[in-house]
Amino acid sequence: MNTEVRLERLSQPEAEARLQASRLAVLAPGSIEQHGPHLPLGTDAFAADVLAEEVARKLGAVLVPLPLVGVSPYHLSWAGSLSFKPQTFIAVVEDICECLARHGVEKVLFVNWHEGNTPTVRLAGDSIQRKFNLRVVVAESHIITNKLFGERAKLTHAGNMETAAVLMYDPSLVDLSKATNPTSEAQGDHGHEIFRQKDVFPIMRDFHEVAATGWYGRPEEATPELAAEIRERVSDYIVEKARLEFDRARYMQG
Amino acid sequence: MNTEVRLERLSQPEAEARLQASRLAVLAPGSIEQHGPHLPLGTDAFAADVLAEEVARKLGAVLVPLPLVGVSPYHLSWAGSLSFKPQTFIAVVEDICECLARHGVEKVLFVNWHEGNTPTVRLAGDSIQRKFNLRVVVAESHIITNKLFGERAKLTHAGNMETAAVLMYDPSLVDLSKATNPTSEAQGDHGHEIFRQKDVFPIMRDFHEVAATGWYGRPEEATPELAAEIRERVSDYIVEKARLEFDRARYMQG
Amino acid sequence: MNTEVRLERLSQPEAEARLQASRLAVLAPGSIEQHGPHLPLGTDAFAADVLAEEVARKLGAVLVPLPLVGVSPYHLSWAGSLSFKPQTFIAVVEDICECLARHGVEKVLFVNWHEGNTPTVRLAGDSIQRKFNLRVVVAESHIITNKLFGERAKLTHAGNMETAAVLMYDPSLVDLSKATNPTSEAQGDHGHEIFRQKDVFPIMRDFHEVAATGWYGRPEEATPELAAEIRERVSDYIVEKARLEFDRARYMQG
Amino acid sequence: MNTEVRLERLSQPEAEARLQASRLAVLAPGSIEQHGPHLPLGTDAFAADVLAEEVARKLGAVLVPLPLVGVSPYHLSWAGSLSFKPQTFIAVVEDICECLARHGVEKVLFVNWHEGNTPTVRLAGDSIQRKFNLRVVVAESHIITNKLFGERAKLTHAGNMETAAVLMYDPSLVDLSKATNPTSEAQGDHGHEIFRQKDVFPIMRDFHEVAATGWYGRPEEATPELAAEIRERVSDYIVEKARLEFDRARYMQG
Amino acid sequence: MNTEVRLERLSQPEAEARLQASRLAVLAPGSIEQHGPHLPLGTDAFAADVLAEEVARKLGAVLVPLPLVGVSPYHLSWAGSLSFKPQTFIAVVEDICECLARHGVEKVLFVNWHEGNTPTVRLAGDSIQRKFNLRVVVAESHIITNKLFGERAKLTHAGNMETAAVLMYDPSLVDLSKATNPTSEAQGDHGHEIFRQKDVFPIMRDFHEVAATGWYGRPEEATPELAAEIRERVSDYIVEKARLEFDRARYMQG
Amino acid sequence: MNTEVRLERLSQPEAEARLQASRLAVLAPGSIEQHGPHLPLGTDAFAADVLAEEVARKLGAVLVPLPLVGVSPYHLSWAGSLSFKPQTFIAVVEDICECLARHGVEKVLFVNWHEGNTPTVRLAGDSIQRKFNLRVVVAESHIITNKLFGERAKLTHAGNMETAAVLMYDPSLVDLSKATNPTSEAQGDHGHEIFRQKDVFPIMRDFHEVAATGWYGRPEEATPELAAEIRERVSDYIVEKARLEFDRARYMQG
Repeated sequence: MNTEVRLERLSQPEAEARLQASRLAVLAPGSIEQHGPHLPLGTDAFAADVLAEEVARKLGAVLVPLPLVGVSPYHLSWAGSLSFKPQTFIAVVEDICECLARHGVEKVLFVNWHEGNTPTVRLAGDSIQRKFNLRVVVAESHIITNKLFGERAKLTHAGNMETAAVLMYDPSLVDLSKATNPTSEAQGDHGHEIFRQKDVFPIMRDFHEVAATGWYGRPEEATPELAAEIRERVSDYIVEKARLEFDRARYMQG
Repeated sequence: MNTEVRLERLSQPEAEARLQASRLAVLAPGSIEQHGPHLPLGTDAFAADVLAEEVARKLGAVLVPLPLVGVSPYHLSWAGSLSFKPQTFIAVVEDICECLARHGVEKVLFVNWHEGNTPTVRLAGDSIQRKFNLRVVVAESHIITNKLFGERAKLTHAGNMETAAVLMYDPSLVDLSKATNPTSEAQGDHGHEIFRQKDVFPIMRDFHEVAATGWYGRPEEATPELAAEIRERVSDYIVEKARLEFDRARYMQG
Repeated sequence: MNTEVRLERLSQPEAEARLQASRLAVLAPGSIEQHGPHLPLGTDAFAADVLAEEVARKLGAVLVPLPLVGVSPYHLSWAGSLSFKPQTFIAVVEDICECLARHGVEKVLFVNWHEGNTPTVRLAGDSIQRKFNLRVVVAESHIITNKLFGERAKLTHAGNMETAAVLMYDPSLVDLSKATNPTSEAQGDHGHEIFRQKDVFPIMRDFHEVAATGWYGRPEEATPELAAEIRERVSDYIVEKARLEFDRARYMQG
Repeated sequence: MNTEVRLERLSQPEAEARLQASRLAVLAPGSIEQHGPHLPLGTDAFAADVLAEEVARKLGAVLVPLPLVGVSPYHLSWAGSLSFKPQTFIAVVEDICECLARHGVEKVLFVNWHEGNTPTVRLAGDSIQRKFNLRVVVAESHIITNKLFGERAKLTHAGNMETAAVLMYDPSLVDLSKATNPTSEAQGDHGHEIFRQKDVFPIMRDFHEVAATGWYGRPEEATPELAAEIRERVSDYIVEKARLEFDRARYMQG
Repeated sequence: MNTEVRLERLSQPEAEARLQASRLAVLAPGSIEQHGPHLPLGTDAFAADVLAEEVARKLGAVLVPLPLVGVSPYHLSWAGSLSFKPQTFIAVVEDICECLARHGVEKVLFVNWHEGNTPTVRLAGDSIQRKFNLRVVVAESHIITNKLFGERAKLTHAGNMETAAVLMYDPSLVDLSKATNPTSEAQGDHGHEIFRQKDVFPIMRDFHEVAATGWYGRPEEATPELAAEIRERVSDYIVEKARLEFDRARYMQG
Repeated sequence: MNTEVRLERLSQPEAEARLQASRLAVLAPGSIEQHGPHLPLGTDAFAADVLAEEVARKLGAVLVPLPLVGVSPYHLSWAGSLSFKPQTFIAVVEDICECLARHGVEKVLFVNWHEGNTPTVRLAGDSIQRKFNLRVVVAESHIITNKLFGERAKLTHAGNMETAAVLMYDPSLVDLSKATNPTSEAQGDHGHEIFRQKDVFPIMRDFHEVAATGWYGRPEEATPELAAEIRERVSDYIVEKARLEFDRARYMQG
């Protein structure tokens, strides 16, 4: 078996062998949404993709391609952003996982980066778990990154964490010289905090409600070293926790 | 205008007046799911209902009736539990809010108690916000209760918090003499903790994965005094925060 | 087993015992629609609910909660009225009955009051009967009431029959002092008659086509005694006929 | 303008002229279901079609082709019977009426024969009335026929009324020599009566519940003279009542 | 067994015998769309119907009735044209074929005439093949006609081929005296060619893009003799090829 | 403006500028399906992607990311293959194009390689054209390649044309040493020919019906030179033809 983990790059016999050996598919929900003038629209998709590939490699699993588009309606007032309706995203996941279950997959691990995908991923995960008798675990990689790196990788939008994420994927896609119009970090933090409350919270309509210019944070702090460190530590973290949860699940089912 | 806030109990002219005056509808998603032998299947629906009524009264709003059933597929292995598919729940909310928007409602406040409803409520809220130009705020009343009362109202299942919730609604529905088969609190806490992780988590298949007997906690600690206190303080909390968020939203829209 | 029949008020073991013993669920479709200034918006839902509860008790069955909202698009020009699209109502019934079938229910009895629900209830009943191998019987309680009580309970809108129905549920919700703007009974009867023709009939667009003020009839004739009598005799009637039909159905299936 | 009223047989300019002149489309829901060994599967479709064509001619309207298939799931245990799911029938009517509304149609008259179509036709009619701003009237031609002809055209299944209906359409499709296995009329009447009750009724699962051989009645009583009389009097009746209802509707809308 | 092949005209026992004997259903997708002032709106439906009936007769199969309406959105700017949304057409075919599979049908042969139906027929065919374990063959009768008759039956719109097709069905529906406004054949050919390209092609929005008057070709060339010849030779061709393909399919499945 | 054409790699301001300048989005439907042991599962997706990128660059358009998965149900008996239901694919295209239309896009060019996508792409194209007022052109790149290169790029499966296509994308994904089990070219040609007939054809159930080993052709003939030539000439061909068709469309709309 070669070291390739991307389903689309494997030949059919290689894919079959790998799917049979691991019974595990890794899926990386994406998002195409504005990330300021200095980062690409695919920032979230790229971040999830890089980490999911690392995770799949370390787990001996197969990385199965999801669309780059996710659920991001509140970015649509910036041209270039795209969004699926939640039911479309769920149908995409259901169709793909119906095929995977037929091919012997028993476990699905979502490696997600985009916060706005979470409710839809939960419902998609619940649906495929019931319909196709799969076991589903979700890794929220942006939360893990922030948890492991704190101020070095803050949960802003297009700041140090997401700039590092693009550096992991392709440094040529970062252009810090364009990062000239940040919303103030205080305003951005405050805006985000409102929607991230767990007790009483509004549903976000438009990201202008968080940041008038669409982004905030400190992209200039991101370095190749930080990027490499995130890739390594976050994927390790996911691998360890996912193994634990899948094991636990097997035990729970008795 | 009388003090009645329940839409179904208002006459049409009263409802019209109240809807026009406040432009605000309160919706309380429910759940019909096993809560051990000592609490009723409608525990979560009753908790949300009582708090939502208080909130609606304090806000001068209208409490609009949702079904008592919510999204609780992982309780279905206990006979009596019911669950909507998420798309059914969303259709219910969409249909009702399309009518409300036609009647002049501009703001919708969900007062939810059942944790399993959250992703679906978020998607329903996003949908009605976009389709009918409403502003949506969600209050997670179980989280608020636990936040305000700590160990006195723990996030177990059918323990002190939920027993108090039923006491708020109708004390005759609590029968502590039946509460003879708790899963150990350590096991329940541990089980719940797994699914409540924010970084890497499995999707719950069956609540047996949390508690083999379906419940855990200390129902015997719940008192009428605690119940009354929860009703008062949690509704006050929601009222204050909801006002803040709706004001902020108005400001954000400029 | 206690005398409680409402699923939401039963504990899980009680519900399970009662479902297993009777295999019979009673469902009461509702409606939230204007009933003049003297009756509540929930009139039809309350009428169905009271009768369904009596019926469930007498049959040893379980009353399973449906939404209070029904299919009433032609009342929407009065603010406060709500309506489901028929497919939403059908999805609600299907989801709930899928759960009930899993819990051992074999028979479903709809106790309906709102005339506008009938085509949708028929289609929902047909669907669940085929999908979940249930046996479905429908009781049209407004028709039975009128059949048993004649002029004392006329098929007007918000007149003596429906005022009595609300008296059955909660007399405090009737305020006859507000009943000052009836459409003339002749006009109302004539309007209703048009849409109730069985051979050639228009589909109702708006209840203004029946009664310009939204209601007609003689609410002042309703008394607590009439209410009590309706509750007793109509529920007895349904119980007897439903038993007959379910028995017949068993025989027909051979 | 020629005397042709069938849309499919008109050229486009003729159709346009006729649609503009009358603004009225006649639709005849069908059914493909067993009618014993002596009548064709399309009996109900043919009956509706003949009457609808007469009605369209007398009203100067256009007869717009619906499928011959209707909603008849309870006949499917006899090979050859076909049935649409109600939502498919509704989608068919919606698509066709969306086109008609675009072409200037303002009124739709359903001429239905098959009893099992009625709830679905009502919901389809309500939907197109709201979505495309049409005015809808429904004629139940089997009820009218029985009303006008009494015992000569009884509401059995494949008896004198339906045999006459096929005689109206094409006498060569009637073969009385095959009518050798009737269920007894008493049994058939009794069976039908059960499902036609208006107060408490079961939903039909299978027409074997009405008649073990699939049909009952007196086909031998049908004559060409009866057929001609039905065609004439029933279409006249529908024409008169439909004119009245459409006029009334115009008046009601003010 | 009589020589009748139309399901709707067969009695149930005849239909059952014929379905069991052949296991083969023939379906003729239709279209209701403008065909100039000289041909009826149902031209494509009639053409498919006549040929499908011949084919069914020669194959001993059953002709199962589809709606006369097909998928023709680009003709809707001419009043009188009708069109299904593709998903409606697919639902119609699925519902009918689910019944047929229950009745023992194993093979479905579509005899299509309307070019615009092809993508939808392919998807419908794929769906029923997978859902109901059928084997599906499609015959494109307009292509076959042109292949066999060349210039005598050109792929124009409402020209010699389609006029002959209507002559096959009912000569009284052709009125050549109205055929006064053809678009020039050169323009029509050119327009059609654009949309019939197989390598790079636009999706047709409106048939005005092909022919400003809606039709072109040489209707005057069509003769009863040509019509008879088309009926005979095209049906023979389909019969032979369909037999071959169904046999091949049986072999392929081993 | 930089030379990047992939939406996901552009920053939001760059994307906006490019979308506004060209009003044109290029979409490349994919497919994940077995291509023997020597080519990757993503062969068709890669082929479409490379050509679409070239086309977008030459047209100054934006390449908008579709999923790599397409409609390929007949490959699912080989583990690793994936397929969308057609309605899922259509929903994906509709959601993305609704966003694009909002961002000012007026023209959509599909660059497709996978033959099995064609009917679904046609229906998706028709839908977005009508719903969002776009103009849609489809390029079938595998047909063009074969047209331009003949025997050097045959329409086999995983033969010289598709091997060259993968060489265009990433030569490391081709491993000719694995290409040891071809189905004979005669058998493959014959199998394909059956399903590619235009007059009478079966719907493919399983690609085993074409080639027992899943592939046939002459992969060894593909060279880097051929790959480069295909990329250049096919993209040029599409660019020229697409320009022509979009110009023509503008003219046709007058």
